[in-house]
Amino acid sequence: MTPRFFTDAIMTDQPATGAHPTMPTTVDLAAVEAARERIKSLCVVTPARRSVDLSAEIGTDVWLKLESMQPSRAFKLRGAANAILSLADPQETGVITQSSGNHGRAVAYVAAQLGIPAVICLSRRTPNEKVEAVRRLGAEVIVDGEDQMAASAVADRIAEERGMVFIPPFDHPDVIAGQGTIGLELIEQCPGLSTIVVPLSGGGLASGVAMAAKSVRPDLRVIGVSQDHGAAMHDSIESGHVVEVEERPSWADALVGGLPTDNTWTLAMCQEWLDAVVLVSEDEIADAMVYAFNTEHLVLEGGAAVGISYLLSDPAEKWGSGVAVICTGDNIATSRLLELVAERRARM
Amino acid sequence: MTPRFFTDAIMTDQPATGAHPTMPTTVDLAAVEAARERIKSLCVVTPARRSVDLSAEIGTDVWLKLESMQPSRAFKLRGAANAILSLADPQETGVITQSSGNHGRAVAYVAAQLGIPAVICLSRRTPNEKVEAVRRLGAEVIVDGEDQMAASAVADRIAEERGMVFIPPFDHPDVIAGQGTIGLELIEQCPGLSTIVVPLSGGGLASGVAMAAKSVRPDLRVIGVSQDHGAAMHDSIESGHVVEVEERPSWADALVGGLPTDNTWTLAMCQEWLDAVVLVSEDEIADAMVYAFNTEHLVLEGGAAVGISYLLSDPAEKWGSGVAVICTGDNIATSRLLELVAERRARM
Repeated sequence: MTPRFFTDAIMTDQPATGAHPTMPTTVDLAAVEAARERIKSLCVVTPARRSVDLSAEIGTDVWLKLESMQPSRAFKLRGAANAILSLADPQETGVITQSSGNHGRAVAYVAAQLGIPAVICLSRRTPNEKVEAVRRLGAEVIVDGEDQMAASAVADRIAEERGMVFIPPFDHPDVIAGQGTIGLELIEQCPGLSTIVVPLSGGGLASGVAMAAKSVRPDLRVIGVSQDHGAAMHDSIESGHVVEVEERPSWADALVGGLPTDNTWTLAMCQEWLDAVVLVSEDEIADAMVYAFNTEHLVLEGGAAVGISYLLSDPAEKWGSGVAVICTGDNIATSRLLELVAERRARM
Repeated sequence: MTPRFFTDAIMTDQPATGAHPTMPTTVDLAAVEAARERIKSLCVVTPARRSVDLSAEIGTDVWLKLESMQPSRAFKLRGAANAILSLADPQETGVITQSSGNHGRAVAYVAAQLGIPAVICLSRRTPNEKVEAVRRLGAEVIVDGEDQMAASAVADRIAEERGMVFIPPFDHPDVIAGQGTIGLELIEQCPGLSTIVVPLSGGGLASGVAMAAKSVRPDLRVIGVSQDHGAAMHDSIESGHVVEVEERPSWADALVGGLPTDNTWTLAMCQEWLDAVVLVSEDEIADAMVYAFNTEHLVLEGGAAVGISYLLSDPAEKWGSGVAVICTGDNIATSRLLELVAERRARM
């Protein structure tokens, strides 16, 4: 179960220095506080719902931070909103990104709310229901390219041609600061909070939350959780530099994906701010999705359930006086969740 | 579809006058504002999540007020918290109620959080899983009596014997004021709000929300929604006095039940404050539960889905600039929801 490493084992390389000249050179608490003010008309303060059952399970207060309650149904709204609202003239330029997942939905939603032109580029492999879901949010959808890499190249080309601003999914100070607002909310919502458990992929969420929360409360522990194969950030922190990983299917599909070699912000921030990174198995992720549904009556995508996976797989961890678990989004077809629930029931 | 009547058809009898001598003679905005302050350490400000799909469906902004995000997973927490926190000496006396549903869970949860002795009386017909769910919340559970009426008599007897305070499910000013806090939150959360759609049973929620919201914004319309058979409040408003109804099974089981003949508060307040009461069929309720699950990824009990039923069954209603729909709780076994989803899929 759960290979892991803790701060004292983390390489403490200096932050990368390849930042764009017009960008700030650091993401700090002030940036998160400014983001909080900026995004409040578009994002909701999501509930941190105390879980009666998980609290009993691990013997301390557990709160579930339900980012699926955002109107775009995932935490990605915060970063996208902060990035777009920080642009000088988005109505004029418009915004563009490549993502069939929560980031694409977030950019489309924000743009529609603000009346900003938006293009979302999707590969030809994107299932039709996901294409339609993005289109329903009001964005222009361009389906082109064999895979995500090719769709990304299409997005770059169109951004260039039309002068649109590309909104990156995680490695950008405004995106990180937006996600960090969750950390500030948790400190206010969870009396006696000692530990934050956060899904970890590209690190925009984890680094923002850890930096913001620990800037206010340095005593907090923040633990990142990834799927146990192809965990790019985990492997990169362990190596001290970006490493390539083999992408394999996972219940936590939102967490799958490599770290671009020009990573500027999130690796360094995860190195600096995370206390531990732990890994959970496919079986543990599936169990947590079923648990969340049957016990908490929550629909969670796999990537949103990894925190619960970790709680259930290691109830003896030193949790301290209170644990907040960030549940990031609900982007899974209910038919797929139902198959999983039925399969798990048949096993019992 | 949806028999209904509107304010001009509602009998405008004077409020009943049988109030207990120590009780206030009215429930007003000040009581709701005081409740809001009182309950804030126990209840969360639930999200009013804008629904992209329902907004498109009826052509105006729709927000879902997700009371299932309360830690006890239903709006009943607000009223129970306000009633218990308003007692002079609850630690000394303890509290008691009779309910296997959301009210019982709410009283048990509040008592556990405050360290107050609590007894929840349940009939012998209560399914074991519901008995265990209440027990898990930390309350003393007494299973006795053939049906709810008999269990209620048991509760009265024990309250008398032990000197415990009975916390009524809806017809009490503190309970009504607690539920009314939802109305104040909606006004702040939903820009351009014009209509509130609220599930209607005993009327504690509907009367509190309507009074609070319309005291601040008299231009708002508040519409109560009940199941189309055995709708006690609907029939009583129509008759101008409490009428008996035949109780029949409904998907909206939380809304089923008669109005006691000594009703003191909620009938008069519903008469005064509701703009309309509409009824939805069993089929419409089931459709809305499936819609909420597949489209919104929400687990809603039938009684929590009646507002969505009404939106979907009458998209041409004059909704105005924005509709808030109160989704009251998630107290349904997921196995039962899954059977319904499968049955609906098979029909298509």
